[in-house]
Amino acid sequence: MRATVMYKAGDVRTETVSDSTIKQGTDALVRITASCICGSDLHPYHSMSADNGPVRMGHEFIGVVEEIGGEVHTLKKGDLVVAPFAFSDGTCQYCREGLHTSCENGNFWDGLPEEGGQAEAIRVPLADGTLSKLPVAPDSELIPSLLTLSDVYGTGYHAAVKGGVQRGKTVTVIGDGAVGLLAVLSAKQLGAEQIILMGRHKVRTDLGREYGATDVVAQRGEEGIAKVRELTGGQGTHAVLEAVGHMPAYEQAVGVVRPGGIISRVGVPQYADAAVGFESLFGGNVTLTGGPAPSRAYVDRLLPDVLDGTVNPGKVFDRTTDLEGVPDGYRAMDEREALKVLVTP
Amino acid sequence: MRATVMYKAGDVRTETVSDSTIKQGTDALVRITASCICGSDLHPYHSMSADNGPVRMGHEFIGVVEEIGGEVHTLKKGDLVVAPFAFSDGTCQYCREGLHTSCENGNFWDGLPEEGGQAEAIRVPLADGTLSKLPVAPDSELIPSLLTLSDVYGTGYHAAVKGGVQRGKTVTVIGDGAVGLLAVLSAKQLGAEQIILMGRHKVRTDLGREYGATDVVAQRGEEGIAKVRELTGGQGTHAVLEAVGHMPAYEQAVGVVRPGGIISRVGVPQYADAAVGFESLFGGNVTLTGGPAPSRAYVDRLLPDVLDGTVNPGKVFDRTTDLEGVPDGYRAMDEREALKVLVTP
Repeated sequence: MRATVMYKAGDVRTETVSDSTIKQGTDALVRITASCICGSDLHPYHSMSADNGPVRMGHEFIGVVEEIGGEVHTLKKGDLVVAPFAFSDGTCQYCREGLHTSCENGNFWDGLPEEGGQAEAIRVPLADGTLSKLPVAPDSELIPSLLTLSDVYGTGYHAAVKGGVQRGKTVTVIGDGAVGLLAVLSAKQLGAEQIILMGRHKVRTDLGREYGATDVVAQRGEEGIAKVRELTGGQGTHAVLEAVGHMPAYEQAVGVVRPGGIISRVGVPQYADAAVGFESLFGGNVTLTGGPAPSRAYVDRLLPDVLDGTVNPGKVFDRTTDLEGVPDGYRAMDEREALKVLVTP
Repeated sequence: MRATVMYKAGDVRTETVSDSTIKQGTDALVRITASCICGSDLHPYHSMSADNGPVRMGHEFIGVVEEIGGEVHTLKKGDLVVAPFAFSDGTCQYCREGLHTSCENGNFWDGLPEEGGQAEAIRVPLADGTLSKLPVAPDSELIPSLLTLSDVYGTGYHAAVKGGVQRGKTVTVIGDGAVGLLAVLSAKQLGAEQIILMGRHKVRTDLGREYGATDVVAQRGEEGIAKVRELTGGQGTHAVLEAVGHMPAYEQAVGVVRPGGIISRVGVPQYADAAVGFESLFGGNVTLTGGPAPSRAYVDRLLPDVLDGTVNPGKVFDRTTDLEGVPDGYRAMDEREALKVLVTP
């Protein structure tokens, strides 16, 4: 079958690999009908050394169940399913608490090196716990929005939930990528009063405004911080949703958070250490939270509004390609020519 | 009047200074009847350079109102009052939210360089907002416990509140100083199921057990982390209350926190940067929170149990001195000969 393989930074290829097959009783084999490229895929695209490759890519997908193992009970051949970006058993203490990314038997997809979501098919371990059935056809016009439940919508929503966003709160969202834009949408859904989007790509920030941003700040660094403070009577915002993962975004978050406020990170941090001392977090009782979103936990909550068209998170996709076009999709996202690329194998 | 002055690390003196007097209409002049030395006073005692001295010391005190400014309305001469370790107006947006340490008009006592709590008297700014009346006499046997409302009990309680401690939660407390022990007491009050105290001074950890610790771990570093993991089925605890402020305590906190758990810091961090990346906090969705406790916010909640003897936080005082003995009190606390020194001017 055809699949996407990254060899090193800047080197992504579509190749023929061994067909995925059922290996364990709890597996499902899924024929992928929609997949995509993630902003977090750009981190290795920038920095991965050849020593760490080649690796299979992709952790967001919708597909049709083609075969199930003998211990799979909730799915059957022909079901259309969406997978979160981590697989999980759905039964351990962490899954029961809604923290599926810390599942005692699960892992992120890169913990399964012989599989990837940017491919024709995939073996899904712990299928009962991992996959959610979708009540539409594989060619539904809702597919782009449903695909965001895999990662970017769940991740944006996680940012807002962990950031304590609720009615009347003020929020800054850092980053105008797909996760940042869906963090805006999520903050709006949760009742935020003011949503300041920090981003400088007008097409994207325009979508951010459509999703609920009340203000857009294009400036960065000290200038951007000053602008957010100006918009908030000098106080900063109750919540800061950081959807980038680079140090300047962290520093910006510290700069715009209100005393007693929450910095909620969902951009995968590309740094190990950061400022957490008296001057940055401690003195103002600022909370730092976030992490990989347990997208699986949010599917039931987010699905109804997607199905009835109340929200349209799929607007973050602005390009579609087949598998052969995936390498160029990476390039286009890296060069900010595309916001997020949908892949139809 | 006599007061405590620190000149540099290791150099604390009792000296005659100008008498404190009312300067503004919102001030109260308080004759101090009980004060104490704080674990956080030991940070400058270890590291302050002579360039930063001399500074007046002390931020925890009980005293009798001797005089009030023309704009003070809730206090009168003769009232016995307790002060938190930061003064605050009680009316700004942060005070109304219970975050008095971020008061728009307040400050920590070291923001008032001509005053200190280890002295015969003190000028208290924003007296209406800052001081809480105590319904006992200045020589009540409850004074040590009431004095802990100034800082160490409020701080331990803040650690537990910010750590999300509630019925059924598991908690690690790092540090067997007064704040750590009162974090144990607070966690117990809030319903924690398991309270693991990390400390190695038996007299202190015995008091910790009396306050509610279910386990004591004397080991530090990797060994201590392994021991806590062993006591928690390998998972770590839901909350980690860090009451030290040095980097090894932070590292220990990261090592013993459960995925999805909360590290709540109240030890003033003696570092600017720390590990916050994927491996330390992010990957497990660990929250880092805490800061200077708004002790003023907790007085009403904690006072009744102190007054009726349900709790006895004053047991953290194991030595009493007059003002002349304060320099030796610093030495005794620094050498861990004393846990916490009460000062009766």
